Amino acid sequence: MSDLKVVADPGTHEIVITRSFDAPREQVFKAFTDPQAVARWWGLRDTETVVDELEARPGGRWRFVERSGNGGEDAFHGVYHDAVAPERIVYTFEYEGMPGHVLLETITFEEQDGRTVMTDSSVFQSVADRDGMLASGMETGAAQSMDRLDEYLATT
Amino acid sequence: MSDLKVVADPGTHEIVITRSFDAPREQVFKAFTDPQAVARWWGLRDTETVVDELEARPGGRWRFVERSGNGGEDAFHGVYHDAVAPERIVYTFEYEGMPGHVLLETITFEEQDGRTVMTDSSVFQSVADRDGMLASGMETGAAQSMDRLDEYLATT
Repeated sequence: MSDLKVVADPGTHEIVITRSFDAPREQVFKAFTDPQAVARWWGLRDTETVVDELEARPGGRWRFVERSGNGGEDAFHGVYHDAVAPERIVYTFEYEGMPGHVLLETITFEEQDGRTVMTDSSVFQSVADRDGMLASGMETGAAQSMDRLDEYLATT
Repeated sequence: MSDLKVVADPGTHEIVITRSFDAPREQVFKAFTDPQAVARWWGLRDTETVVDELEARPGGRWRFVERSGNGGEDAFHGVYHDAVAPERIVYTFEYEGMPGHVLLETITFEEQDGRTVMTDSSVFQSVADRDGMLASGMETGAAQSMDRLDEYLATT
């Protein structure tokens, strides 16, 4: 069962998402940094994600295209500041539908009681950008994507 | 005369520095993105900065080493998310003395009344990191570095 939590304190620049997975953190880290793995779980349930680029090293670039059933496409890209297996990934994130708005995302993986706890912190350039992301329904998107990741991990 | 302003609203993740320069924005943008130029003004007045890497393009890396007169060294590095001449630079920033603590810095350049107004926004991974940067004396450092940039621009 999902233990997803989304915390966004009013007036701050941050959203923090936590969730645990029934897998060792090496496996969870790999699911985030291996292009073939990401394509299997990233994005909303009724979409397909094409991983255009993903090079998880300082200065490496990433770009994902999320295709919905009706032919719509949403693309996202950024650069990796760090990828320290199996502990931490730090990268920038930009939705190409809102060019010039960038956030810094830090994902850490910790093992607790045989599970991996993921903590995903995003800090936005402004509180307005952060509030816009919340209003866009990101909570539903994150929940679906994390559920898909959970299902993917069960198959690996 | 310096019109430097540093704004850090309590409880937020952000520091915003603004300052104007008596130069066209192409020239100010170049001072931030050309390795030889950066070495001439970046850092405290009594230090010398060695630009180890600076490639201002998405995924490009940067690393600066600031040497003080007594032989001390402080190093900083990050990756560029964007560098859009002469308007905007977006990059990550990590002080190697505090590894794992990263911020996202966005610098924009606008021309107003024949001067260039720089707006430099930094968002930190936590409010505590932001407050730590303020406590470290960054305001004095920014003032000195911006004065040095002003003097450098007058020579180009």
